[in-house]
Amino acid sequence: MDIATLLGLVVGVGLIAWAVISGAGEKVGAFIDPPSVAIVFGGMTAATLISFPLKSVLSVVGVLKNAFLHKAMSAEKLIADLVSYAEIARRDGILSLENVTKDIDDDFVIKGIQMAIDGTDPELIEQILTSELDSISDRHSRGKGIFDTMGKYAPAFGMIGTLIGLVIMLQNMDDPSKIGPGMAVALLTTLYGALVANLVCLPLADKLARRSGDELLLKEIVIRGVMSIQSGDNPRVVEQKLKTFLSPTMRASMEPEEA
Amino acid sequence: MDIATLLGLVVGVGLIAWAVISGAGEKVGAFIDPPSVAIVFGGMTAATLISFPLKSVLSVVGVLKNAFLHKAMSAEKLIADLVSYAEIARRDGILSLENVTKDIDDDFVIKGIQMAIDGTDPELIEQILTSELDSISDRHSRGKGIFDTMGKYAPAFGMIGTLIGLVIMLQNMDDPSKIGPGMAVALLTTLYGALVANLVCLPLADKLARRSGDELLLKEIVIRGVMSIQSGDNPRVVEQKLKTFLSPTMRASMEPEEA
Amino acid sequence: MDIATLLGLVVGVGLIAWAVISGAGEKVGAFIDPPSVAIVFGGMTAATLISFPLKSVLSVVGVLKNAFLHKAMSAEKLIADLVSYAEIARRDGILSLENVTKDIDDDFVIKGIQMAIDGTDPELIEQILTSELDSISDRHSRGKGIFDTMGKYAPAFGMIGTLIGLVIMLQNMDDPSKIGPGMAVALLTTLYGALVANLVCLPLADKLARRSGDELLLKEIVIRGVMSIQSGDNPRVVEQKLKTFLSPTMRASMEPEEA
Amino acid sequence: MDIATLLGLVVGVGLIAWAVISGAGEKVGAFIDPPSVAIVFGGMTAATLISFPLKSVLSVVGVLKNAFLHKAMSAEKLIADLVSYAEIARRDGILSLENVTKDIDDDFVIKGIQMAIDGTDPELIEQILTSELDSISDRHSRGKGIFDTMGKYAPAFGMIGTLIGLVIMLQNMDDPSKIGPGMAVALLTTLYGALVANLVCLPLADKLARRSGDELLLKEIVIRGVMSIQSGDNPRVVEQKLKTFLSPTMRASMEPEEA
Amino acid sequence: MDIATLLGLVVGVGLIAWAVISGAGEKVGAFIDPPSVAIVFGGMTAATLISFPLKSVLSVVGVLKNAFLHKAMSAEKLIADLVSYAEIARRDGILSLENVTKDIDDDFVIKGIQMAIDGTDPELIEQILTSELDSISDRHSRGKGIFDTMGKYAPAFGMIGTLIGLVIMLQNMDDPSKIGPGMAVALLTTLYGALVANLVCLPLADKLARRSGDELLLKEIVIRGVMSIQSGDNPRVVEQKLKTFLSPTMRASMEPEEA
Repeated sequence: MDIATLLGLVVGVGLIAWAVISGAGEKVGAFIDPPSVAIVFGGMTAATLISFPLKSVLSVVGVLKNAFLHKAMSAEKLIADLVSYAEIARRDGILSLENVTKDIDDDFVIKGIQMAIDGTDPELIEQILTSELDSISDRHSRGKGIFDTMGKYAPAFGMIGTLIGLVIMLQNMDDPSKIGPGMAVALLTTLYGALVANLVCLPLADKLARRSGDELLLKEIVIRGVMSIQSGDNPRVVEQKLKTFLSPTMRASMEPEEA
Repeated sequence: MDIATLLGLVVGVGLIAWAVISGAGEKVGAFIDPPSVAIVFGGMTAATLISFPLKSVLSVVGVLKNAFLHKAMSAEKLIADLVSYAEIARRDGILSLENVTKDIDDDFVIKGIQMAIDGTDPELIEQILTSELDSISDRHSRGKGIFDTMGKYAPAFGMIGTLIGLVIMLQNMDDPSKIGPGMAVALLTTLYGALVANLVCLPLADKLARRSGDELLLKEIVIRGVMSIQSGDNPRVVEQKLKTFLSPTMRASMEPEEA
Repeated sequence: MDIATLLGLVVGVGLIAWAVISGAGEKVGAFIDPPSVAIVFGGMTAATLISFPLKSVLSVVGVLKNAFLHKAMSAEKLIADLVSYAEIARRDGILSLENVTKDIDDDFVIKGIQMAIDGTDPELIEQILTSELDSISDRHSRGKGIFDTMGKYAPAFGMIGTLIGLVIMLQNMDDPSKIGPGMAVALLTTLYGALVANLVCLPLADKLARRSGDELLLKEIVIRGVMSIQSGDNPRVVEQKLKTFLSPTMRASMEPEEA
Repeated sequence: MDIATLLGLVVGVGLIAWAVISGAGEKVGAFIDPPSVAIVFGGMTAATLISFPLKSVLSVVGVLKNAFLHKAMSAEKLIADLVSYAEIARRDGILSLENVTKDIDDDFVIKGIQMAIDGTDPELIEQILTSELDSISDRHSRGKGIFDTMGKYAPAFGMIGTLIGLVIMLQNMDDPSKIGPGMAVALLTTLYGALVANLVCLPLADKLARRSGDELLLKEIVIRGVMSIQSGDNPRVVEQKLKTFLSPTMRASMEPEEA
Repeated sequence: MDIATLLGLVVGVGLIAWAVISGAGEKVGAFIDPPSVAIVFGGMTAATLISFPLKSVLSVVGVLKNAFLHKAMSAEKLIADLVSYAEIARRDGILSLENVTKDIDDDFVIKGIQMAIDGTDPELIEQILTSELDSISDRHSRGKGIFDTMGKYAPAFGMIGTLIGLVIMLQNMDDPSKIGPGMAVALLTTLYGALVANLVCLPLADKLARRSGDELLLKEIVIRGVMSIQSGDNPRVVEQKLKTFLSPTMRASMEPEEA
């Protein structure tokens, strides 16, 4: 689980709750209005369903779970593994990697190495792996797109709810004592919309984009590594090539292993 | 029909209607004001007519109908078809495809294969098909552009209507009991504009763009396939080339057929 | 004259006028306030003069007139003409085009063919025609830019006028009966600014961009055609090359002539 | 001095002053509030100082003066000069240009020709002149950036000033007669911010960008001309090459000289 | 320390403080409300934590300190140094640079020269140094991104706080004397959010981007210089190549040293 996301959500929700409770006292119930919740969440969901195919909207849960629970392999570990495969292929021939694939967790690595073992044309290996990379990138950016869309429509339906509430209130101005509470309820949808957008949807969309970038970098390292193994590169060369993907600090932390 | 679009529209309109009815009680009629409808829809239409050529605006209905009712061929089916044409061309010569074109539904595929049969210069085939692709893409993005434009001007004319209503109301402040209802009517145009933009125009523009992307991918597969058939590629090679357009999950679902 | 533009302006202005008159009754004069008109139009003009060179601002009238009154040649007609010139050049030599240039309307076509007749270096012909194309495109996009700029500053000076009106009104709150009308006048500038921007400037800027695109496509066809004629291409080849600029429906409508 | 800029400023400031004076009557003093001026201008300056290096902010005055007072050489005159240098170089050898450089005003032209005389490597001449061009372009776009930044922060500090004024006013609501004037003062900062941004900063930023474009075009002509002279091109060819930078109307106005 | 940043912060904060104190008199305490501070800063921090990985957020302090306290080497000095290394390498062989590296401050220069001494493949040197440059650029733009994000969410949570305050106030409208102060408190969060964004976060993000540009230019000069030294270029050529990175004024100030 991504610590910063959890921390941010807890801090944000906690603070807002504290501000509401400490400010409203026993009238805290005034902040909860089911019809307002329905307008904001329902409207946001409706607009998102119209914007995206149903399949994409349903896949959001999976994207979220995957993005926050799936522990990504470290790039250092991945490079070390790929270099060891290159050593095996150099020493015992590329077919001997057959035994190794059983112990690999990552499907993408297995697929790449299996194609190398099968003697698939290098250009085709690269095309297939790259197309898979593009497809993962697509899926991720659709996930981000859905959260961005929700973050765009939540405040819009918040405003729509407030307008509906104001029109109702303005029709009933005979009893001045009801103007205040009527307007309070009308403002709730704007508040809900702003919270959903700024505390959940938009920041999550940003985090998803960043996690996607990290994951795609790993896939690129795999593609580069498989191509290099397939062409029979010296393991040292494989290592040097792959390490250019790392940041200098990451690279420095690998130097001892290299010596 | 696109399920998510229908679902989104029903959910969205239903929710707003429920919120209005449950909130306004018997005064629900206050939410319907024909002059306000005229300002928002008329102004939006006027601005769209000035922005686009008449022909484009009129074609919107067709674009919408086509985008939501037309059932796109699946990419898997299309590739399987193209591979079978490649097999026929390989076995019996490219002229034998003449018999096949009668059974093809898609005009774009027929056109491409017919040019290959006629021995048209490959470069010219590619140019003509690509120019057709560009033209379809243009038509789609004009369709999306019109909905985006309507989604931009609907709230603007909503605000203009509210300003007109406010000026009228402020001129008649002698009778305080009319201030509330006057302001309520003034706000209606803003409400209408926000609903039209956020529940209809902007989400539909997004969906159109996504459907267009799917359709253009199919056309690109056709172009690639026709070029490959024309150059006499081995059917296996045609299949491999075309499948790089598919996402891995789609590709996996085709593997059995391949074996 | 562009029908949709005229229609849009008439519908839009008519609707707003109807809404104002039917809503305000005999107080319709309250919607006309010369100082408010001066602030919005004057401010918008001032900001546009500071943003653009005087020459560009003055040329706007010409750009508008040209864009809406000038009847563009149809692309089909243009291609048919260019193909016929190619036939003449093929049959009687390129110098025989000298007789043809007298009957051509379009200066751009004349210039291109004249250079071909004069034996100007092909690369230079292309450079000169392309530089002319760029210069037309520049002039058009400056025209669009001026309308976009006016559409940006009109609402800004509308808001400035409202602020000035509010400050004046707030200084004179002794007589409560004047608050309403004072505020009504203050809101007028915002209303004017919104109308000028959303009903005139921004939609016209969009239409200009689209008309410019159509006109530049014609110029590109001319350049391609002149280069093709100059290099002595077969008229059939000239036709095929030029028709890739057309959309498929336009192309289909030319097929009979081709047979 | 750029006429349109001066005209725009005079018209804009005049109009606003007229609207304020004619509207406020003898209460015109209510529109001048030194603390409000301090918040808007001070805040805008502070934010600009944080955004840019001190040196860039101080250079703004120079950029402005240069942009509006410096009379740019006409492109036609520049091309005629460069063609005459090409003629001299053709006739008497490139070293004979030594006598010419004394009479040239423009440092950029002198520098280019001097390097050609010195026999500097053509590639290096181009690199050095291009790097100088980039550096001028950089300075200009920094100038534009500073005005854009001021135009962004002026309204922001206008709003901040209004919020401060509102909070003060709301704390002192015991005396209702002071609410109006208090709110009037609070709105002044928003008015100032909107005026500074929309009448001065943003339009000036646009004008600067346009003047920069004109000046950089001249420098590009110089670079192209010097490279052409250096390579010993025929003066006619130099002229043809350079004139492709001109718009067709400018080019037409040079034709007589050419004959 | 960057003078303009300090100056801007002092001027900005000082002005706002003066405006508040001079305006509010002894009621200045009304501008300080701890719960409002908590909502704006807490909400902004929460949204930033959700948007970025924890590591990036924590590194902000380092990025800031580095950007404002670290005194960048001047480009002129750096070029002079690199040219002197080129002279040594030319005279005594590249291995003799070993003695020089001890006296160099900058790790990036040392790393590049050390690889040249070690005879690392030129292509690999360039790849490694460029990847390090990309990684520095990444770190900087993440730093800028965090400030931009904070500048985006601070006003959003300011508005959320105001909405919460308004709802609470509207529920308690029995006592009219509390409406003013209640609304004053509600507006404070909007004021805080606007100040944090416009006086701190957004301008700092801009300054960071500009400082990053300066630093990356130095690194590019180093890469170009090391590559040039490694390939045994003449020191004069090294100097000429590197000086094309300088602006003309910087270049002019180096001329004497060159003579």
